[in-house]
Amino acid sequence: MAKPRVFIALLHYPIYNKHMEVVTTSITNLDVHDIARSARTYNVETYYIVHPVPAQQELINHMLEYWRSGYGAVYNPDRQEAFQRLQLIDTLEDVIQDIEKKTGQKPVTITTDARVYPNTISYIKLREEIHKGEKPYLLLFGTGYGIIKEVMEGADYILEPIYGGGEYNHLCVRSAVSIILDRLLGEPWWGK
Amino acid sequence: MAKPRVFIALLHYPIYNKHMEVVTTSITNLDVHDIARSARTYNVETYYIVHPVPAQQELINHMLEYWRSGYGAVYNPDRQEAFQRLQLIDTLEDVIQDIEKKTGQKPVTITTDARVYPNTISYIKLREEIHKGEKPYLLLFGTGYGIIKEVMEGADYILEPIYGGGEYNHLCVRSAVSIILDRLLGEPWWGK
Repeated sequence: MAKPRVFIALLHYPIYNKHMEVVTTSITNLDVHDIARSARTYNVETYYIVHPVPAQQELINHMLEYWRSGYGAVYNPDRQEAFQRLQLIDTLEDVIQDIEKKTGQKPVTITTDARVYPNTISYIKLREEIHKGEKPYLLLFGTGYGIIKEVMEGADYILEPIYGGGEYNHLCVRSAVSIILDRLLGEPWWGK
Repeated sequence: MAKPRVFIALLHYPIYNKHMEVVTTSITNLDVHDIARSARTYNVETYYIVHPVPAQQELINHMLEYWRSGYGAVYNPDRQEAFQRLQLIDTLEDVIQDIEKKTGQKPVTITTDARVYPNTISYIKLREEIHKGEKPYLLLFGTGYGIIKEVMEGADYILEPIYGGGEYNHLCVRSAVSIILDRLLGEPWWGK
């Protein structure tokens, strides 16, 4: 089996707020840390944080510097390693271009939603596809109240919702990323 | 199949720090929120936060009041629902007693570790056991640098480490909880 090539992007724009207005959300410190660690654990090639505002990027870059080359790098080398694959970037278009530059191919884009669409794909099917290793895959995650309709419709696939065992489905994005990476890239623990 | 009865506890004491000294760690706001949402999604009966210091409990109780009955409950009813099953408690012994009171049985205790032990259990085996619904199960999670040896050794089972696909394994506790709940209690997505 070839090596899967998976990229993830956390979108802070264009995002819906509670009232379905298109907004830019703030970068959350914990999203940076937790998702970088999950991404590193599951061998994601690059974790893109998509934010168009330079002041926000600067704030995060300052924090990253501490962990990448400041005292943080000495104090916690695991964190340093997790942050090596993190990249701040302006727009989703830039993400696609960057992946094309890195892999020579346009990535297959996948997003998640609580509803089912004509291009909905199951976890096992996507897992099999990814593990063929023929194409790069980009998983898109939203902040706030979710990624806007136009971006959702532009994705190649939409992943099934995560069913926990009841009606309640309000995982935070950090948990959703972990579970989705585990289902797509984790060891096949169910066959052991 | 009977209904699984699963409880989780996040231990802030007794915990190791970086130097393997036994310490009490602080409660982190995000651990409260993220894990409560994951617990609710996977139908965990009670999410215990174990902390012996009243001042820390008071701080969190203040925050919980806002979400349970203050403006937060109106603004975000999903969060209110997630917090209904959260319980602050002094010690691990109190957790065990509380579960006995609620279920009439002593829970089977399970912890996680990066190493393999004589009582290590696989995810699929534990999943099958839990779904028999005959006994209550208590999953223990540590903060800081992990649960102390004595508690580890006292657990009925130790779950296998989560293998992401490489050597790096430094998930945050919030991610580890999500992934473990999904493996044990999520839908059998791999068979679809």
